[in-house]
Amino acid sequence: MVKIAILGYGTVGSGVYEILKKNPPSIAKKAGDSIEIKYILDIREFDGHPEKHLFTKNFDDILNDDEVSIVVEVMGGLEPAYSFSKSALLKGKSVVTSNKELVATHGTELIRLAKEHDANYFFEASVGGGIPIIRPLNQCLTANEIDEVHGILNGTTNFILTKMFEEGATFESSLREAQSLGYAERNPEADVEGHDACRKTAILASLATGKFVDYHDIPTEGITKISTADVFFAGKIGYVIKLIGSAEVGPDGKVQAIVAPRLVSKDSQLADVNGVFNAILVHGDSLGDVMFYGRGAGKLPTASAVVADVIDAAKHIHINKWVIWSEAEGDIMQNPGECVYRYFVRTSNKALAENLPGVDVIGTLEGETVFTTGEMKEKDFMQTAGGKCAYIRIL
Amino acid sequence: MVKIAILGYGTVGSGVYEILKKNPPSIAKKAGDSIEIKYILDIREFDGHPEKHLFTKNFDDILNDDEVSIVVEVMGGLEPAYSFSKSALLKGKSVVTSNKELVATHGTELIRLAKEHDANYFFEASVGGGIPIIRPLNQCLTANEIDEVHGILNGTTNFILTKMFEEGATFESSLREAQSLGYAERNPEADVEGHDACRKTAILASLATGKFVDYHDIPTEGITKISTADVFFAGKIGYVIKLIGSAEVGPDGKVQAIVAPRLVSKDSQLADVNGVFNAILVHGDSLGDVMFYGRGAGKLPTASAVVADVIDAAKHIHINKWVIWSEAEGDIMQNPGECVYRYFVRTSNKALAENLPGVDVIGTLEGETVFTTGEMKEKDFMQTAGGKCAYIRIL
Repeated sequence: MVKIAILGYGTVGSGVYEILKKNPPSIAKKAGDSIEIKYILDIREFDGHPEKHLFTKNFDDILNDDEVSIVVEVMGGLEPAYSFSKSALLKGKSVVTSNKELVATHGTELIRLAKEHDANYFFEASVGGGIPIIRPLNQCLTANEIDEVHGILNGTTNFILTKMFEEGATFESSLREAQSLGYAERNPEADVEGHDACRKTAILASLATGKFVDYHDIPTEGITKISTADVFFAGKIGYVIKLIGSAEVGPDGKVQAIVAPRLVSKDSQLADVNGVFNAILVHGDSLGDVMFYGRGAGKLPTASAVVADVIDAAKHIHINKWVIWSEAEGDIMQNPGECVYRYFVRTSNKALAENLPGVDVIGTLEGETVFTTGEMKEKDFMQTAGGKCAYIRIL
Repeated sequence: MVKIAILGYGTVGSGVYEILKKNPPSIAKKAGDSIEIKYILDIREFDGHPEKHLFTKNFDDILNDDEVSIVVEVMGGLEPAYSFSKSALLKGKSVVTSNKELVATHGTELIRLAKEHDANYFFEASVGGGIPIIRPLNQCLTANEIDEVHGILNGTTNFILTKMFEEGATFESSLREAQSLGYAERNPEADVEGHDACRKTAILASLATGKFVDYHDIPTEGITKISTADVFFAGKIGYVIKLIGSAEVGPDGKVQAIVAPRLVSKDSQLADVNGVFNAILVHGDSLGDVMFYGRGAGKLPTASAVVADVIDAAKHIHINKWVIWSEAEGDIMQNPGECVYRYFVRTSNKALAENLPGVDVIGTLEGETVFTTGEMKEKDFMQTAGGKCAYIRIL
């Protein structure tokens, strides 16, 4: 029997409990041993819970219990999740997490600690909810050099952008609908400003390159400035607008990473990913394109990814499974100004089109001209057009 | 150093050689040890090969060399692939394969032998070419009961159907184009009659249910009878036609599996999978839908899946990794006559529409009426309409 503790009984934590209690024989068969929840840590009271005896407010109960071999950290946030995870790993307990912020911030150290203490630090649920992406990158695509990852990594913003496209709705009204449906928080900043997608992009970039990519180094723009005019003109030339987290490895080995709204051709598989769904498109040198699609959030999808990691951890008690991710040596990031894009531009400054290369005018609306440019470096675009227009990079 | 042998130096075998020679330090880093090809078995001569000393025609050279710990079987066909794989496993060597026919026929036995001899039998490349699907089903989705798998599993037929849809071309001319581009064999039967998709469906069904599903028990229809009229009328009501391999587990635990052309709603993610691409849509009870998309065939995509398995096998020398797949107890297959579908029907027999439930007429063309039916059991449909019409099941 493998005994585990769940840290945090919120949405994901209660989903983990539910899945483990639903069909224990099936879980036991897959894990090669039965899995028992011995503790649930939460600061709140759960007096009505059918197993209220499992609850504790004291992490030391868990840390000092040698019977507990797997700790499920689904608290979110950096502290106390970081301290708890670290001390569990130092004791040789495996840690399974859905905490993207913690993985993006301290992943390198926690992966190393797991290795040093014959334990595992698994984080499949930190990106893409229930979509298997971490393990495929880490195990299935190992014969490839991954040179590009592009993902729709945030369901809230994708729901909003889909509404704007399908119904011509404004950003504000689409956001309100997302909030009323429970897809967006009352304070939607982490989603709509791209912070959530940024942390996930950092995790994917680290796995794809094998080197830690710090999320602070990833330029991040949200979708709050996307207008119905952008949506209309993008559609007119065969594009949709998606919030894309991307990481590309250039021929010089430098990583070009960015989170921003992008014009995506309707021919791309990513263009068909609508509503709260997520998708991650990976390009490998031998493989070409492969895409992973599914629900990127939600209680049971995310919890099912956590439980799959628990099952894998249970099959590897005291056996470290290798993770392709180590400390970067030197600066591996491309200077954002050197990155090359085509731009979609909307401006009332008529002269601008004459000063940019490869301009292709799409139309005009209410005194604004809308056009696309040819390829140019970000620093050159910013020098000429910065502050004079609304723009979206083209994928 | 881990020493391996490659059995069969055809398209996939030479791709495996190429990938392993391309970037040995990267492979060694991921495998935790360097990987050396010690033998290549092929009955043909390869005198111009830069490493012609690796070639042998005698499998016993490999079998009796204790240094060889992994055998890569990429010969295809049942024999001698089966005998070679079996004897390698009996000696405790791991076997990695892309051979769908062998996995679908003798997978249960070979998986069991691997387990009994502390070795592994890995077959990621047998389904979906380079698309990671076997390992996700086996490791990532373990917290789910998988109740549905639907796949576009054959690139040749998907190329032909895409041509028919996009250009209104006939089956025959699309097949000729596929042949001239090298996507279809001169004898295309295994592809166009659905046999290739059938074996892959059996493998997916076995992994999804955890029980061996014999491909002989899967009703299989090809795409040779699909007409331009079918394509036209399906498009008119918002559907495309795809060759789908599917397995569903009913509430009674019985497996309903079939390979057949299906009308697929344009709203489905599968409808956007075009040309030689493959995709597999999996439904889990906790997860909802998740889809895997990519190149289902081709030298380097398939070889990269083989090499990823070699890397995994190298990390698990003498450690058996568990595969969710065992002998079925009793008959687990649903009687095909009991399966329920809606049908798309094209017929010159005007009375037929009056004898079928829920008929919705789409149109008429050259004396034929085209309509869809409501849901009905296959046996009831066949009794009323069998032999009197052309039909396609609706997904």
